[in-house]
Amino acid sequence: MNFSSKLLEDAVNEFSKLPGVGQKTALRLVLHLLNKEKEEVNLFGNTLIRLKAEIKNCNICRNISDHVICEICSSNKRDKETICVVEDTRDVMAIENTGQYFGVYHVLGGLISPMDGVGPADLFIDGLVDRVAAGGVKEIILALSPNMEGDTTLFYLYKRLKEFNVPITTIARGIAFGGELEYTDEITLGRSIITRVPYETAMMK
Amino acid sequence: MNFSSKLLEDAVNEFSKLPGVGQKTALRLVLHLLNKEKEEVNLFGNTLIRLKAEIKNCNICRNISDHVICEICSSNKRDKETICVVEDTRDVMAIENTGQYFGVYHVLGGLISPMDGVGPADLFIDGLVDRVAAGGVKEIILALSPNMEGDTTLFYLYKRLKEFNVPITTIARGIAFGGELEYTDEITLGRSIITRVPYETAMMK
Ligand SMILES: [Zn+2]
Ligand SMILES: [Zn+2]
Repeated sequence: MNFSSKLLEDAVNEFSKLPGVGQKTALRLVLHLLNKEKEEVNLFGNTLIRLKAEIKNCNICRNISDHVICEICSSNKRDKETICVVEDTRDVMAIENTGQYFGVYHVLGGLISPMDGVGPADLFIDGLVDRVAAGGVKEIILALSPNMEGDTTLFYLYKRLKEFNVPITTIARGIAFGGELEYTDEITLGRSIITRVPYETAMMK
Repeated sequence: MNFSSKLLEDAVNEFSKLPGVGQKTALRLVLHLLNKEKEEVNLFGNTLIRLKAEIKNCNICRNISDHVICEICSSNKRDKETICVVEDTRDVMAIENTGQYFGVYHVLGGLISPMDGVGPADLFIDGLVDRVAAGGVKEIILALSPNMEGDTTLFYLYKRLKEFNVPITTIARGIAFGGELEYTDEITLGRSIITRVPYETAMMK
């Protein structure tokens, strides 16, 4: 592209770095911002800077949070004896949206994927084991997307956690294999949490 | 959406304001940025703030520029006697990309569109008339997208400019009616500039 302005080019380049945003789209977004009031654009820029500077991961569950302990972990309305293990914060949002779950979470920060070079050590798995080892947990729900990486992670977590003799369940396979948990409609996702089954049952197929 | 963090929610809301960006996409973009280094996110934010604070519109042609007079208007390699009139800066970029045009530009900042409430007074048309009235212009090329608004604007500009007895041409209709100038491939667009025709000829059809 032939930019008439270095400032314009820089801004387009920044947007182009985002996943799924090509140069034409980036240019359209930047020109849109240029038509906005200065205050609005400043708010956009400063919101991003503040986000990165101030955001935290909950010390207990690793979910994205404004505080060192997230709202769910610090709420006295949530059942601390049930831990729902998910891949990332989008899954927490999806499950919270169903209104069907009242326990707490554990955010792994990804799934085991040998293809992508993601091993157990790259995920927040030791933190989960520590939480369970500390006692007081009555059920661990493994709510991972039903795909290759999800199943690999499920299997690994089961091996690590079974020694604690805490019931381990997985969300019901209402979600088709290969489906993405975060894109599942609320009804299916809500139901699959209610009808969760012991890990052993789920894997028998 | 059920956000676990106000900072996260604010950032998602900012992205959601962009055209064509829904909440799910916005969330994906924000989580992508959260995985980046702080310096990268700061650069993104500050680039947008600087863009809006420092960018200018060329005093002569109104193209987006880092200076009060743009590089094209201030270049002694460009033919100042030929003015190519376009809708916006994306069209300047598209035409510059063809490498077929060596005159200067005039950026209207839009097209006349009664449907959208855009009248001649909302565009930088008086500035164009002043440039032509000042003399020294040997040709005015009207390079507007061949659609309803483009034709309306073409007709209006022709009426305003014909009294100066400067040849008025339009880019050749190599671009199908209804097509968008900025998305036209370089070859077609370059050729349509070379084979430009007098306005009167073009409108006879
Ligand atoms: Zn937490
Ligand atoms: Zn200029």
